[in-house]
Amino acid sequence: MREVAVVGAGMTAFGEIWDKSLRDLFVEAALAAIDNSGVDKVDYMTIGCMSGGLFVGQEHLGSLMADYLGIKNLPAARVETACASGGLALRHAFAEVASGMSDIVIAGGVEKMTDISGDGATFALATAADQEYEVYHGATFPGLYALMAVAHMEKYGTTREMLSAVSVKNHNNGSMNPFAQYPFKVTADQVASSVMVADPLRILDCSPITDGAAAVVVTTVEIAKKLGKPYIKVLGSGHATDKIALHSRHDITTLQATEVAAKKALEMAGKKIKDIDFAEVHDCFTIAEIVVSESLGIFEKGKGGEAALKGETALDGSFPINPSGGLKSKGHPVGATGIAQIVEIYKQLTGQAEGDRQLKNSPKLALAQNMGGSGGSTLVHIMEVA
Amino acid sequence: MREVAVVGAGMTAFGEIWDKSLRDLFVEAALAAIDNSGVDKVDYMTIGCMSGGLFVGQEHLGSLMADYLGIKNLPAARVETACASGGLALRHAFAEVASGMSDIVIAGGVEKMTDISGDGATFALATAADQEYEVYHGATFPGLYALMAVAHMEKYGTTREMLSAVSVKNHNNGSMNPFAQYPFKVTADQVASSVMVADPLRILDCSPITDGAAAVVVTTVEIAKKLGKPYIKVLGSGHATDKIALHSRHDITTLQATEVAAKKALEMAGKKIKDIDFAEVHDCFTIAEIVVSESLGIFEKGKGGEAALKGETALDGSFPINPSGGLKSKGHPVGATGIAQIVEIYKQLTGQAEGDRQLKNSPKLALAQNMGGSGGSTLVHIMEVA
Repeated sequence: MREVAVVGAGMTAFGEIWDKSLRDLFVEAALAAIDNSGVDKVDYMTIGCMSGGLFVGQEHLGSLMADYLGIKNLPAARVETACASGGLALRHAFAEVASGMSDIVIAGGVEKMTDISGDGATFALATAADQEYEVYHGATFPGLYALMAVAHMEKYGTTREMLSAVSVKNHNNGSMNPFAQYPFKVTADQVASSVMVADPLRILDCSPITDGAAAVVVTTVEIAKKLGKPYIKVLGSGHATDKIALHSRHDITTLQATEVAAKKALEMAGKKIKDIDFAEVHDCFTIAEIVVSESLGIFEKGKGGEAALKGETALDGSFPINPSGGLKSKGHPVGATGIAQIVEIYKQLTGQAEGDRQLKNSPKLALAQNMGGSGGSTLVHIMEVA
Repeated sequence: MREVAVVGAGMTAFGEIWDKSLRDLFVEAALAAIDNSGVDKVDYMTIGCMSGGLFVGQEHLGSLMADYLGIKNLPAARVETACASGGLALRHAFAEVASGMSDIVIAGGVEKMTDISGDGATFALATAADQEYEVYHGATFPGLYALMAVAHMEKYGTTREMLSAVSVKNHNNGSMNPFAQYPFKVTADQVASSVMVADPLRILDCSPITDGAAAVVVTTVEIAKKLGKPYIKVLGSGHATDKIALHSRHDITTLQATEVAAKKALEMAGKKIKDIDFAEVHDCFTIAEIVVSESLGIFEKGKGGEAALKGETALDGSFPINPSGGLKSKGHPVGATGIAQIVEIYKQLTGQAEGDRQLKNSPKLALAQNMGGSGGSTLVHIMEVA
């Protein structure tokens, strides 16, 4: 297996981008990544997108994006595993490069979520749950994560203040990210008094509906060296699923797919979770970041909320989580999110994160955790400075 | 790069399967492939599906299918490139195995197309075209392929009789396939007098709307040998795109993505098109099989129709095409089609094709060509007897 690197990164601003279409967004991010990497050719392209079909009536993004990117006959295709589609795009790019099938691959992600009218976005997102046994009976994702929050509070004593601490911390980080959809700070009081969505989750516990795209250039370490640009190594890739429906799981206070994917990625990298300097994780809801931080083994089971409240996951904490602002503040264009995490890790590990969110401790090793549905799929990647 | 093999294959009956859902269909095919291969574990699963979202309101098939297949935490994900999603699933399985990331992978495909009401299927399929510049203006796939047919007739003198010959031949082959949706023979007169869909294409020039699933087990040649079951080698994988919209191409009488993908796959395999004994190709419309047979280099440009009329592509012809019955007779559950082609090649190369459609000349080398949209994506794979 060849050693794999990420050698350039780009993304669009995240937000309600009314003047750009799905193709415009993706091409902007891909061109930014190509430009940033200095590559003069591309051999393959993988595109994470959850539902071009339901959001904008467009499937077949491989052909569309290669065409609009202007790279003749470029082999390109979409991959999907709900909100973890971006992480999946990175894994497929990794396999293409590691196997020797391709030398230089764009791994990108995109979603255009604000063009759909009425409750269309809620329906489109709900197709990541079990349609026949959850959604037809009224479940949507805020409701499913609310069930997880209630169970976690009951079992471990997790509190409203702990949930709020996650939102406050991520909005603080995101306020320094020029690409963030909501780059403003919030207070714990604001979070706790924001409008209720699904008890106990309030609107400031929830990631937003977002348009956006992100892309990275994946190649061999050998080629990355020759390009003379900053690069990072991808040491491990872990992928796992869990039962898709929440009611089929034995314990909804933990995320088994995250546990298994992290174990695989760390084993492949030859590292332990204690070796990791910071992580970008999938905080689609505040409770998700808490449970993920426990399932990854960063904190003991039931201690994730307390750690957030104590500032352990802040930029200057013992284990910074989501320096980018996370899905909460940066935004969550679902297919792009997993790649936007890699963009942040690339910037942090190469010392290029904008403003004061650059971690001060010269991070060497980072982890990205991207999940789909209520945790039915998870991709974990481990990256190291070159 | 490790040597890759296909060691088992399974599929559901293709047709209007009212009593089985999307998950039922996929699990049936995957279990059949596992059973056929004799493997006792699976490391990864790739699932080709064009639009679970639009056809049945279900994305996130990786988690769903791993769950219903009953393989705990199996890493699994969907890949999509319109009607070439099955071929893409094989390529991703190939990369997982070739790279050493996984040893035993299920490459499957599924589509449940008949549950959607009204003109929903036509809209869902049309999302493989350029939504903004083709579909919103009224184009659908029969119309786009009809344009290609008219241009081919004008440029090369291709005739109604030649189009009909493709349908007659494929229905003859499919009449011997117990999994086919329309396992009956048709005459050239029946084709030529069937109802007009988009001039010159009539209903018997068109592949049908189909429910179905197919799966193969992909592993290393080394593991395949140890299993003691019949296996075939995957020698080459080629993937390419073309401009998604027909009006953006310089010449609509050829398929550039097919040309490029075939060239790549043959180069990787170290073979020439003349070495190939037979092919399964993407006959979504009769004209498609003719153009594909030319773009692959089997016949000279403009000679594909004549070759079909002369019987060159029949089971006993100089270059048999679609011994399975092709999309026309076997059916076209879009995400499953590319894998169903591999199922047929596996059966033919290992001498297991049902009834009289088993090729008599002991075929050694086969090609699968699977395309999306009006040829905006193509996957080509080359397989050899072990």
